[in-house]
Amino acid sequence: MLLAGILHRPESEDTAILADHQVMLRLKTALDDVTKVEVIYADMYLWQEGTPMQTTAMHRGLATQSNQYWTLPVTIPTNRLIYGFRITDQDGQSIGYGDDGFFEDTLTNWAVAGHYFHLPYLHVSDAELPPAWVKDTVWYQIFPERFANGDRKNDPENVTAWGAGPVKRDSFYGGDLRGVIDHLDDLADLGINGLYLCPIFTSPSNHKYDTIDHFEIDPHFGTKADFQELVAKAHARGIKVMLDAVFNHFGEQSPQWQDVVKNGQQSRFADWFHVHGWPVGRDPKTQQLNYETFATGAAMPKVNTQNPAVQDYLINVTKYWIEQFDIDAWRFDVADEVDHGFWRKLCGALRAVKPDVYLLGEAWHSSQALVNNGQFNAVMNYPLTQPIPALLNHELSLAAYVGKTNLQLTQYRLPNQQAMFNAIDTHDTQRLLTTLHGDEDKLKAALALLMLLPGSPCLYYGTEVGMAGGPDPDNRRCMNWQPNTDQLALKAFVKRLIGFRRQRADFLATSELSWQIDDQCLTLKRQGPTQTVCGRFNLGTTAIKAAIQNVVISNRTSAHQLLPGGFEIKVN
Amino acid sequence: MLLAGILHRPESEDTAILADHQVMLRLKTALDDVTKVEVIYADMYLWQEGTPMQTTAMHRGLATQSNQYWTLPVTIPTNRLIYGFRITDQDGQSIGYGDDGFFEDTLTNWAVAGHYFHLPYLHVSDAELPPAWVKDTVWYQIFPERFANGDRKNDPENVTAWGAGPVKRDSFYGGDLRGVIDHLDDLADLGINGLYLCPIFTSPSNHKYDTIDHFEIDPHFGTKADFQELVAKAHARGIKVMLDAVFNHFGEQSPQWQDVVKNGQQSRFADWFHVHGWPVGRDPKTQQLNYETFATGAAMPKVNTQNPAVQDYLINVTKYWIEQFDIDAWRFDVADEVDHGFWRKLCGALRAVKPDVYLLGEAWHSSQALVNNGQFNAVMNYPLTQPIPALLNHELSLAAYVGKTNLQLTQYRLPNQQAMFNAIDTHDTQRLLTTLHGDEDKLKAALALLMLLPGSPCLYYGTEVGMAGGPDPDNRRCMNWQPNTDQLALKAFVKRLIGFRRQRADFLATSELSWQIDDQCLTLKRQGPTQTVCGRFNLGTTAIKAAIQNVVISNRTSAHQLLPGGFEIKVN
Repeated sequence: MLLAGILHRPESEDTAILADHQVMLRLKTALDDVTKVEVIYADMYLWQEGTPMQTTAMHRGLATQSNQYWTLPVTIPTNRLIYGFRITDQDGQSIGYGDDGFFEDTLTNWAVAGHYFHLPYLHVSDAELPPAWVKDTVWYQIFPERFANGDRKNDPENVTAWGAGPVKRDSFYGGDLRGVIDHLDDLADLGINGLYLCPIFTSPSNHKYDTIDHFEIDPHFGTKADFQELVAKAHARGIKVMLDAVFNHFGEQSPQWQDVVKNGQQSRFADWFHVHGWPVGRDPKTQQLNYETFATGAAMPKVNTQNPAVQDYLINVTKYWIEQFDIDAWRFDVADEVDHGFWRKLCGALRAVKPDVYLLGEAWHSSQALVNNGQFNAVMNYPLTQPIPALLNHELSLAAYVGKTNLQLTQYRLPNQQAMFNAIDTHDTQRLLTTLHGDEDKLKAALALLMLLPGSPCLYYGTEVGMAGGPDPDNRRCMNWQPNTDQLALKAFVKRLIGFRRQRADFLATSELSWQIDDQCLTLKRQGPTQTVCGRFNLGTTAIKAAIQNVVISNRTSAHQLLPGGFEIKVN
Repeated sequence: MLLAGILHRPESEDTAILADHQVMLRLKTALDDVTKVEVIYADMYLWQEGTPMQTTAMHRGLATQSNQYWTLPVTIPTNRLIYGFRITDQDGQSIGYGDDGFFEDTLTNWAVAGHYFHLPYLHVSDAELPPAWVKDTVWYQIFPERFANGDRKNDPENVTAWGAGPVKRDSFYGGDLRGVIDHLDDLADLGINGLYLCPIFTSPSNHKYDTIDHFEIDPHFGTKADFQELVAKAHARGIKVMLDAVFNHFGEQSPQWQDVVKNGQQSRFADWFHVHGWPVGRDPKTQQLNYETFATGAAMPKVNTQNPAVQDYLINVTKYWIEQFDIDAWRFDVADEVDHGFWRKLCGALRAVKPDVYLLGEAWHSSQALVNNGQFNAVMNYPLTQPIPALLNHELSLAAYVGKTNLQLTQYRLPNQQAMFNAIDTHDTQRLLTTLHGDEDKLKAALALLMLLPGSPCLYYGTEVGMAGGPDPDNRRCMNWQPNTDQLALKAFVKRLIGFRRQRADFLATSELSWQIDDQCLTLKRQGPTQTVCGRFNLGTTAIKAAIQNVVISNRTSAHQLLPGGFEIKVN
């Protein structure tokens, strides 16, 4: 037995609390090594008084490139559990595994309390379960300056004509909140029920990630009255609203930083930033900045979020928009470069104000350290979504895709996995259609795969009408409000896909997930107690047999064949 | 290569922040599989602008039964790091390992940002470094009712004569705070510099783990003035004071629970506990309690630490004894059965009051989930200490001992490892000498091994004069204040051992640790930049050659031989 590959860690992603008295236990073994895993468990105190241990076999779960996961949901009437694993290999040899390592599978050993793992007391509050509505949400991300110009009176000077390109880093097109309000019916019709707005607070740029005033709407975007109307009308249509907060750094033009520039060490904001020399600026010789910033430029000074005054200010910002405008969620920009201590304070304060608020951190990598422990419900799940276009572009083998996807799925507890923010493309990446070399069939397949995965999927504005775009700023083109017939057909297809997803949102969040690879055909199966949903993707170069019935959505099928690049979703 | 055994998890015990700009990276591989591991790393933003990656080989670290650890301290001038591992096996085959799994070791792959692990920004505050004084502390645990009776006027009625046995569950012997004050000079002379007092608050029992009033000293133990004097006199002798708080449950006689018993659902304390039926009590048919308790008895109702009113009350208790009496540390009883959300609030509040307070949770198993993330500095480290008597009693092989010890050492970040509370025996276990079947040579060896390990060691009162005792209540015998010649000799030996430890406390906390097994001789080596400390333990049945020079402490040596059961500590 490959002991080196066996791992379980108590009170981690290996012990996901699903509800009061309910925990999902998980064990990792080496791939293709072990044939059977049993959990041996009891309430420690009752066991010490004579109640016998229970023994239950685990289910074979997901596999990564190197490891096999085993899972078992366990009900714990007393909320207290000690447990060990009996692991049996292909030769029938078994071993015990628990808190103090491996031991011989003997009755004597199983009588030793010290060999067992402990889940001392299951408090459901410690599960920090994400708000239930998140897993039922299909998001739509809007870059407000480019979505729709609903009010010409608040346009910036020298505004460029809508859609005139190419988009430059400093272009302004006049998009605003009124434009979003005007199109809420279109969005509701498309079927989305969550709006993620990139920053809307006062800032000199078109992207507004360099905030000047976190308490004010940028005048080119509209007024607080407009935003109040936007939230109210979104809510009236069952659409949740998420704002974007940039707390890793402030804009160079923020009054706080300008005060530091002007007053130096005497500024009352001197310790709001990370300044290592005075006056702030570049060393004349080395050209090095004497203060910390986002990335390497001078424009976005990094904020000292360990400073209690800064903490109070930023917490008040986020509470303000919840309390005064009833927003439903916050997305936190560059969350991974901000300290965990601050996030714990902020997230705790927001949950006290609105218990079902969705708190989302931006990260580009697997981020177990940002999820739970008093912090975020979820992160932007690029590591899960980015292999999708790589698979469809044949840059990843089917097996490699499955291994990487399972690796990411296994990073988070099941309830968090269901609340992960699954965007394939955003304002920070090139557009999906462009990554897929303009191939609309691939776009459809990518979105279908996205909708079948656990997590809260997000569409970047314009994806539904086939908008293309390279890296920033080309990915921020003006929304196409005059789609042609083909684009309208794509939109209808996307609408059907969203409808399919929302109708089965709970099922697609919670049902068991497995993969099958038959030559170049990838099948993703979601299995519930009474229903099965299967997505089949033909990634080969020859047609294969299509399903005859129960297909709810498909693409590139002909004469009962699933053509190369086609897919079908079957519900049984 | 055994990929299944390879694991690194960012922002976990695998990335211990040691100081600003300093991190200890760690990778786990299968045992005896890999010959070389290199870290390839850079600041992501600088790398994207052309700064090349650095490549540094990792050091071979500790090994468990199944896995080999590799470590590397890395300095990060910008506090930002991306990094991957290049792993080479015995056949010279190499592979890359990073955030998205394993990849071929090619230049093309190393150019892909998504392959790297991220340490997005190192905030030293997130390290939650334990107070520096803890690693320099040798603790002495006192069970106050049994240590010394300094004031006969506050004795309980029907007090038993000091030392008259056998000890019963409900015996009272009259020990008190005055008795501790009277012996502070003895304790200082023994060399300890931390006092851990079992609960001293009002309670009807001799152990006082069933608190009635957390704001009052038990009258049989003395007054607040006595305690003030105790702390002041301890501090004057360089001795820190730690109190014991029982927040998982209250005593049945507490006014809060009594109010619930009397007023039922109308009690203002009704939601201070976990009550599932009214009136509180046993179901007449099933005899089941309708409220939750510690373990399975009725006497200690479990407290609802998710209730904000309870949280405020308990936080005020702990702040009170710090603010009014200047205590240095809190030990939290049954910490593992209380919710993490509460501990985060409480620990945060206490650190705001006294930044260098030591916060210690009771647990009996490996408890990564209780350490850091805004919670405790350390836990009671039984999983590390309990194999020591098992080794000396020949119940564990030398290799099994080393494997288990390394498993526990690797559970925590290096700074936390140094602050772990390493008690072999306490009021909750039988006494060490009894576990060692009365063998004083084994006792000396056990204490020597304890002093050589990282962590903050603790002696249970009376160990230094060879006190024996079986399980509770026999482990709580009255302190022996009339030691005989042999017992005084043991005390002198223990004093030398404590002196050795305290003189090299920093070195023994931070120096590298390795093990060597030569037949039945176990060597624990601590290696610093300029010094080496070696403990050699002869666990066989024949004498072996002793060291000729630089031995600072030894036992069972004769004619340059280390006799069976003997040990020596050498400093080079």
